Amino acid sequence: MKSKWEWLVVAGLLVAWGTAQMTQNIAAEKNEKMLRHVVLFKFKTEVTPAQVQEVADAFAALPKKIDVIKDFEWGTDNSPEGVAAGFTHGFLVTFADEKAREIYLPHPAHEEFKKLVGPRIEKVLVFDYWAKK
Amino acid sequence: MKSKWEWLVVAGLLVAWGTAQMTQNIAAEKNEKMLRHVVLFKFKTEVTPAQVQEVADAFAALPKKIDVIKDFEWGTDNSPEGVAAGFTHGFLVTFADEKAREIYLPHPAHEEFKKLVGPRIEKVLVFDYWAKK
Repeated sequence: MKSKWEWLVVAGLLVAWGTAQMTQNIAAEKNEKMLRHVVLFKFKTEVTPAQVQEVADAFAALPKKIDVIKDFEWGTDNSPEGVAAGFTHGFLVTFADEKAREIYLPHPAHEEFKKLVGPRIEKVLVFDYWAKK
Repeated sequence: MKSKWEWLVVAGLLVAWGTAQMTQNIAAEKNEKMLRHVVLFKFKTEVTPAQVQEVADAFAALPKKIDVIKDFEWGTDNSPEGVAAGFTHGFLVTFADEKAREIYLPHPAHEEFKKLVGPRIEKVLVFDYWAKK
């Protein structure tokens, strides 16, 4: 059997290890460089909700096909400010660097996606930036 | 002195704890709901680089003044696609929910910022969305 003190040392080590892991994760998240790729779509009026959904689903399927996509999220505009310029669907793609974007842009899966979306949209806006705090 | 087996149990516990912490952090990050607030500016041609920088700095100072801003980042457009509609500066503000946005929008510090930026921009685009994967 261990003494009370031995157990205290073990417990202390466990807490220290857990804290170190958490701190490391937070630090890694904060210092990571991210190249953000914002894409906004305004669909043509004749495009059906099902066709819109098909585009969103096809975009959301790209991270599984193109491994340089580091992070991906999307959503529909719900700003109460009324200055979204008619854009209804927004996508935020994250790359590690410009090299990753160079692989993404002409990637066959991306080209195939563009063929699907192109005829359905009235306009697109693409804005990329290195994320600074 | 502990036996070899006792040390092995302690080491095993440490590894298990560390792994559990990491998994928990990753899960927390992935399941967190985020209301994203994308803001793009195109500045008037007569606005000087120093005045542009002043606007970016003033926006970047808002998270310290408005505590419902959960995350903030910004950057200048570097997309090679040429469909940024003239927008040069992009900001990504993250809120926990709509209530936080309701506090942010009419917040005195935000109103003061809008007074600074308003006369300097040719156009603004605001697109908000609940981030889905």
